[in-house]
Amino acid sequence: MEPTLNSTAAIQRAFQVTDDGWFEYPIHVYPHHTDYGGIAWHGAYVAWMEEARVAYLQTLGIQYADLVALGCELPVVDLSIRYHRSLRMGDSAVLKARTSGVEGVRLVWDYQVLSLDAQDLYVSAQVTLVAVDREKGKIMRQLPPSVKNALMRLAT
Amino acid sequence: MEPTLNSTAAIQRAFQVTDDGWFEYPIHVYPHHTDYGGIAWHGAYVAWMEEARVAYLQTLGIQYADLVALGCELPVVDLSIRYHRSLRMGDSAVLKARTSGVEGVRLVWDYQVLSLDAQDLYVSAQVTLVAVDREKGKIMRQLPPSVKNALMRLAT
Amino acid sequence: MEPTLNSTAAIQRAFQVTDDGWFEYPIHVYPHHTDYGGIAWHGAYVAWMEEARVAYLQTLGIQYADLVALGCELPVVDLSIRYHRSLRMGDSAVLKARTSGVEGVRLVWDYQVLSLDAQDLYVSAQVTLVAVDREKGKIMRQLPPSVKNALMRLAT
Amino acid sequence: MEPTLNSTAAIQRAFQVTDDGWFEYPIHVYPHHTDYGGIAWHGAYVAWMEEARVAYLQTLGIQYADLVALGCELPVVDLSIRYHRSLRMGDSAVLKARTSGVEGVRLVWDYQVLSLDAQDLYVSAQVTLVAVDREKGKIMRQLPPSVKNALMRLAT
Repeated sequence: MEPTLNSTAAIQRAFQVTDDGWFEYPIHVYPHHTDYGGIAWHGAYVAWMEEARVAYLQTLGIQYADLVALGCELPVVDLSIRYHRSLRMGDSAVLKARTSGVEGVRLVWDYQVLSLDAQDLYVSAQVTLVAVDREKGKIMRQLPPSVKNALMRLAT
Repeated sequence: MEPTLNSTAAIQRAFQVTDDGWFEYPIHVYPHHTDYGGIAWHGAYVAWMEEARVAYLQTLGIQYADLVALGCELPVVDLSIRYHRSLRMGDSAVLKARTSGVEGVRLVWDYQVLSLDAQDLYVSAQVTLVAVDREKGKIMRQLPPSVKNALMRLAT
Repeated sequence: MEPTLNSTAAIQRAFQVTDDGWFEYPIHVYPHHTDYGGIAWHGAYVAWMEEARVAYLQTLGIQYADLVALGCELPVVDLSIRYHRSLRMGDSAVLKARTSGVEGVRLVWDYQVLSLDAQDLYVSAQVTLVAVDREKGKIMRQLPPSVKNALMRLAT
Repeated sequence: MEPTLNSTAAIQRAFQVTDDGWFEYPIHVYPHHTDYGGIAWHGAYVAWMEEARVAYLQTLGIQYADLVALGCELPVVDLSIRYHRSLRMGDSAVLKARTSGVEGVRLVWDYQVLSLDAQDLYVSAQVTLVAVDREKGKIMRQLPPSVKNALMRLAT
């Protein structure tokens, strides 16, 4: 589960996948994430969820930039977020991500934002991606085999 | 329906509310909205939808900053977006916003992003806000009367 | 000086160029622009300045997206901003933009953010762009003639 | 130099301060950072630089959120960035931050964005902060002693 994000020891980041298939991505609320209320702006989670997906794929050996270079994109087609509690400036939390399965060329991700002690649920969300052929601008009929195999490995 | 956004003739922006209650907010895809694919990043719509809500309230005489100063916030508790087509860099479109009603202290907004000729639907979305007492940090039992009256006026 | 941003009367936005060559772009501080202090986050101005540049070029008949499609990009190579006063949530202001000249393939923009009555200066800034050949990934030896002519027209 | 960002082993992030006083903050270009050109949008660096400052202060025992709660803010009053090379989607790099000194209530930060092997310089920048009394909305006459001591420790 060691990430390949960085090659030097100085800047490693240890990601973890739990037994029940959740990928854990740490988040921290910096000033630029906050709004006038001193809490994380509701749109900030959209960026964090994207980061977690890309980081998760990376731990499985899929570099999203390579996928794009090969002509396959995974745009978001559906997004829903429920905000249960607010994260405040300076808070650290864990963003958990899990795929509930690959349906043809659709990939559904579930998310939870939890306190570090896992006692408080801040946000729950679901994001659906679809594989698109960059050149044709159309939804692919099937995933490239290498991609499918890797994605299958992370489906619960 | 004249906005009070700006006091000088040089920087007026004419908003319009259609007969069926849609508030029309113009959007334009600048480079900072785009991602590597040359299209509007999926999170950009979250900011645009907030701008449209605030601008709509403004045309009804409610300055959101005043509401906050009075101790009432309207945070997002639920958000769902469907992406039907992509807006490209340089595209202009119309973001339509409408409230489907005030339910107690909950306010539900429907959104559509349409091409200027209204022939293409890019995005449809729904956002739910709830009135929160800033000081107590709790959901209000009822909306302040002045707010309720204004909000009722824009419910369809 | 009429913009071509939108084709319908409902969503016109009137930009103005003053006698001394300043292009005036209206800005408004929405919640997503603010940080915990209730003021516009310092990075928000970078996006507004980009919008003003692109809108200004548009009023001169240059669609930035077309420029990119033709293989010419204008990336930022230098940026400096001084923050004199803070804009608060709900504030409207005017972002003034002016080019101080085309130097070969470099284009220098000056900016000022002013209150609507022009009495208060919030921000002053300077941004330098350079014309880059997209395919070669290198700085162009000279601007495409059509671009140069349009840019020369807006230089003071 | 161990950060206190996260309390669980699963989500540690190891920051490092070099012998010559540079704090090293890892960055990674996710899709939301990119623009149409597939490179990190020039404004993305403003957020990364803020994150690095806040993380650096954190390693010195100063939680920025606590500072704000105590009535002291450190807004940016001056910002300048030079873009030497572009970071592409999927790139990892190191953002180095160092204070060149506390001048009264002004704090000057120098930045460099370097490739992981430190061979390529992408960006160099300087950001000046000033200590402001939140309640009075005025520049402080002097830094709170606890803050000054910590800041002095990181000045080179």
